[in-house]
Amino acid sequence: MEIAIPLYPRFTALDCVGPYEVLSRLPEARVRFIAHEPGPVTTDNGMLQLVAEASLQDVPEPDVILVPGGFGTRDLLGDEAMLQWLRHAHDTSTWTTSVCTGSLLLAAAGILDGVRATTHWGAMGLLGELGATPVSERVVIEGKIVTGAGVSAGIDMALTLAAEIAGDEYAQTIQLGIEYDPEPPFDCGSPAKAPHAVAALARAVEDSEE
Amino acid sequence: MEIAIPLYPRFTALDCVGPYEVLSRLPEARVRFIAHEPGPVTTDNGMLQLVAEASLQDVPEPDVILVPGGFGTRDLLGDEAMLQWLRHAHDTSTWTTSVCTGSLLLAAAGILDGVRATTHWGAMGLLGELGATPVSERVVIEGKIVTGAGVSAGIDMALTLAAEIAGDEYAQTIQLGIEYDPEPPFDCGSPAKAPHAVAALARAVEDSEE
Repeated sequence: MEIAIPLYPRFTALDCVGPYEVLSRLPEARVRFIAHEPGPVTTDNGMLQLVAEASLQDVPEPDVILVPGGFGTRDLLGDEAMLQWLRHAHDTSTWTTSVCTGSLLLAAAGILDGVRATTHWGAMGLLGELGATPVSERVVIEGKIVTGAGVSAGIDMALTLAAEIAGDEYAQTIQLGIEYDPEPPFDCGSPAKAPHAVAALARAVEDSEE
Repeated sequence: MEIAIPLYPRFTALDCVGPYEVLSRLPEARVRFIAHEPGPVTTDNGMLQLVAEASLQDVPEPDVILVPGGFGTRDLLGDEAMLQWLRHAHDTSTWTTSVCTGSLLLAAAGILDGVRATTHWGAMGLLGELGATPVSERVVIEGKIVTGAGVSAGIDMALTLAAEIAGDEYAQTIQLGIEYDPEPPFDCGSPAKAPHAVAALARAVEDSEE
């Protein structure tokens, strides 16, 4: 099973490394990080590079597509090389998935027209403008399209997908293997739960990055 | 604030990318991925490379040390270059931290002698043999030493550390920024919670990798 993760400048590392950590443990999985050109790709904050082992063209028909988010998505909404790769890969994929603002790229490619999908809480409006039907859920499954909410939601999305692909027991074994028994120190991971001052500050940070 | 993450062959990517995603958002944080030599370092499953921007020697006295785990730790328990770097960096660090089996390296360096610490559930025995006092908790703080449990626990560890460094409100803003409002599809992330068959299978996978 070939799982392709397209990288691009200013992607968010956890968006893809969370799901990679889960999906790489599926039977006969081969996760392939790809990009416009092979080589190192720099994250949103400039502090880390992941290596793309191959180009988009080298992996035209993966079984699973997983598009990470990041502020770099905004620069790709009209990037025909990326959008055409997504359209073609989606035609033959078994699963087409995204984390965080990765769904903006799926929407820009026309894959989410009228489809229920999620994204980071700060990008719901833009997702709707691009033709999708935004919903505030952690993981949204619509046929073969699975979208996850912001950044850390990729782990939940990937475990949900793992259960669809390999069954509950296999997915549970992966969850135990990565000891995913979360104990967040605060209960403020969504705007509805966060104190007002925290939500305002977080929104200001999001807006400043746009 | 300089945050050093030492990489080595067969590290586990989520162990360090989870905390990186949190700690990179702290005020004036600079996260530096380092290794014996600069360049790409390959993860445990061979499917991903992260780039070390500098050598261990280039970053001798970081403010924060964060040691990720991975099966490659077993090859480093007698690696004097890594252990001496850890000892020297720990002498001057503000915080010395680990995720998963990263604590085995801290223990091998003599930093955890008689100190309460945690690790992946599959490595508790080895952590004790190396001189630490293993405890089954998600995050353990002992003075300036903070250890986290397996793989995904790095996110909880880093948010806890972020609150220590920058205060609760700042840490909450980071938690909201990465939308860390976990909804695991199963409640099986620790051996005590997992069905018996799942725990047995997960333990067999851990043992086969040793």
